[in-house]
Amino acid sequence: MHHMDTLHRVKANTKVLAFDIFGTVVDWHGSIVREVQALYPHVDANAFALAWRAGYQPAMARVRSGELGWTRIDELHRLVLEGLLPQFGLTHLNETERVHLNRVWHRLDAWPDSVAGLTRLKQRFTICSLSNGNLGLLTNMAKRAGLPWDCVLSAEVFRAYKPDPATYLGVAQVFDLEPHQVMLCAAHHDDLDAARACGLHTAYIERPMEFGASQIKDVSPQAGNDLHARDLMALADLLGC
Amino acid sequence: MHHMDTLHRVKANTKVLAFDIFGTVVDWHGSIVREVQALYPHVDANAFALAWRAGYQPAMARVRSGELGWTRIDELHRLVLEGLLPQFGLTHLNETERVHLNRVWHRLDAWPDSVAGLTRLKQRFTICSLSNGNLGLLTNMAKRAGLPWDCVLSAEVFRAYKPDPATYLGVAQVFDLEPHQVMLCAAHHDDLDAARACGLHTAYIERPMEFGASQIKDVSPQAGNDLHARDLMALADLLGC
Repeated sequence: MHHMDTLHRVKANTKVLAFDIFGTVVDWHGSIVREVQALYPHVDANAFALAWRAGYQPAMARVRSGELGWTRIDELHRLVLEGLLPQFGLTHLNETERVHLNRVWHRLDAWPDSVAGLTRLKQRFTICSLSNGNLGLLTNMAKRAGLPWDCVLSAEVFRAYKPDPATYLGVAQVFDLEPHQVMLCAAHHDDLDAARACGLHTAYIERPMEFGASQIKDVSPQAGNDLHARDLMALADLLGC
Repeated sequence: MHHMDTLHRVKANTKVLAFDIFGTVVDWHGSIVREVQALYPHVDANAFALAWRAGYQPAMARVRSGELGWTRIDELHRLVLEGLLPQFGLTHLNETERVHLNRVWHRLDAWPDSVAGLTRLKQRFTICSLSNGNLGLLTNMAKRAGLPWDCVLSAEVFRAYKPDPATYLGVAQVFDLEPHQVMLCAAHHDDLDAARACGLHTAYIERPMEFGASQIKDVSPQAGNDLHARDLMALADLLGC
C-alpha cells in the first residue's frame, strides 16, 4: 500500500523517530483496567479507565488556554481522579492510596510488539518519546517496561502540550534537524495532522484496542500520512530495520 | 575508607544517580586530541583541547550573568572555537569543517569503565545525566558510546547551568523526590559542593587523566562527599550493584 517513492523519501530523510506514548507505545486502557480490577474489584474498571482518560484533554485545555499555569500530567491526572472518586464509590481512599493509584500512569504496560519493534528501529534511527506525559512518568514507565529510548522528550521540556507546534518543532531543534528529518509515530490522526502541519513526516500506528474491547477504534488509513503500520514491528519492516 | 553508616544511609535513601558527563563519564581531552591529531596533524592537539575546554566556563558565565540570553553548549563551543582558530593556524577551515569539528563534543569516547559501571548501577537505580551539555549533544554521545541512560537530563531542560540550584533541585523535582534521594556523581568538587548545598548526596569519581598526561589532576578525597570511587565500577561495588 505504500508507494515506493514515499518509502524511499522517508528512509532517505528521517533521522529521528518521535513516538506518541499513551495508546501508541503503551496500553493505558488495559493496564488501568488490570490494576483497578485487582485493587478495587467492585469498580467498573472499564468505565473507570475510559472516564479517567476522557478527562485528560479537557484538563490540558485548561493549561493551553492559560486558565491554569504550567501543570504536569501527574497533577492533571490527579485533578481528574479526584473528580471521579465519588461516582465510582472510592471516596474512602486515603492520600497514600490516591497517590499510588494516580501513579498507575507510570506503570502502564507496553503493547506486545513495542519493545522488540523499538529495539529494531533504534539500530537505524534515534528514537525518542514525544508525549504530553511528564519526564518522571515517562522515565519510570520506560524503566519498568524496558522501552529503549535514546532520549526521553516530553511536553515538560518544551513547556507546551501537543498539538502546540513548539513540541514538534522542538524535537527538530533539539537535534539540529529540519522538521522533515523527524517522523512522528502515533495512533492518533489529530496528533499526526499537527505534526504534518509543522513539516514532520508522519507514521500512523494502528491500535484498534486502545479503548478496550467495548469500543474498537476505527484504524482506517488516512491519506495524509507517509506511513501506515499495524504495529511497531510492521513499522520496522517498512523502514528496513 | 567509607564508614558503614554512610554507606547504609546512602544506599537506603538514594533512588536516582545523576552523572556529570564531561570528564566524569567521557574523556573529552583524549577524544579531542585523537580527532585533532587525525584531522590536523600540524596542530598541538593537547594545547588545543585544553584551550577549548578552558573557554567553556567563561562562556557559560556570560549566560549566567545575563550578558548572553539562553545559549546551548553547542553554540558556546562554537564561539570559543572561533576564538581559537587563529592561534592554532586553522583559519582556513570552511563552514562545513568548522561544524564538523565543533561536533567532536558529540563524539566523545566514554572512559573504559563507564558503560559497564552504568549498566550495573542501572539495575538498582534510575541513572540520568546532569550535564551542561545540550540534549542533542548528550543523546548523540550516548547513542554512539552506548551509555545506557534511563533519562537524558541537561541544563537545557532547566534553562540554567550548573552550579545553579535549579539544576540539582530540578532532578529531584522531575522524579518527585527529596533532594537527599538524588546523588550527584562527578569528578569535580565544585559541582559536588553545589549539589551538596542543595541537599543532594554526592559521590566523587577520580579521573586523574581528565586533562591528559601533561596535567595530572589531584584526586585526593574531600571530606564533604558521601562516597569516593576510583571509577564507575568501584562506585557499583560500593553501592552493592
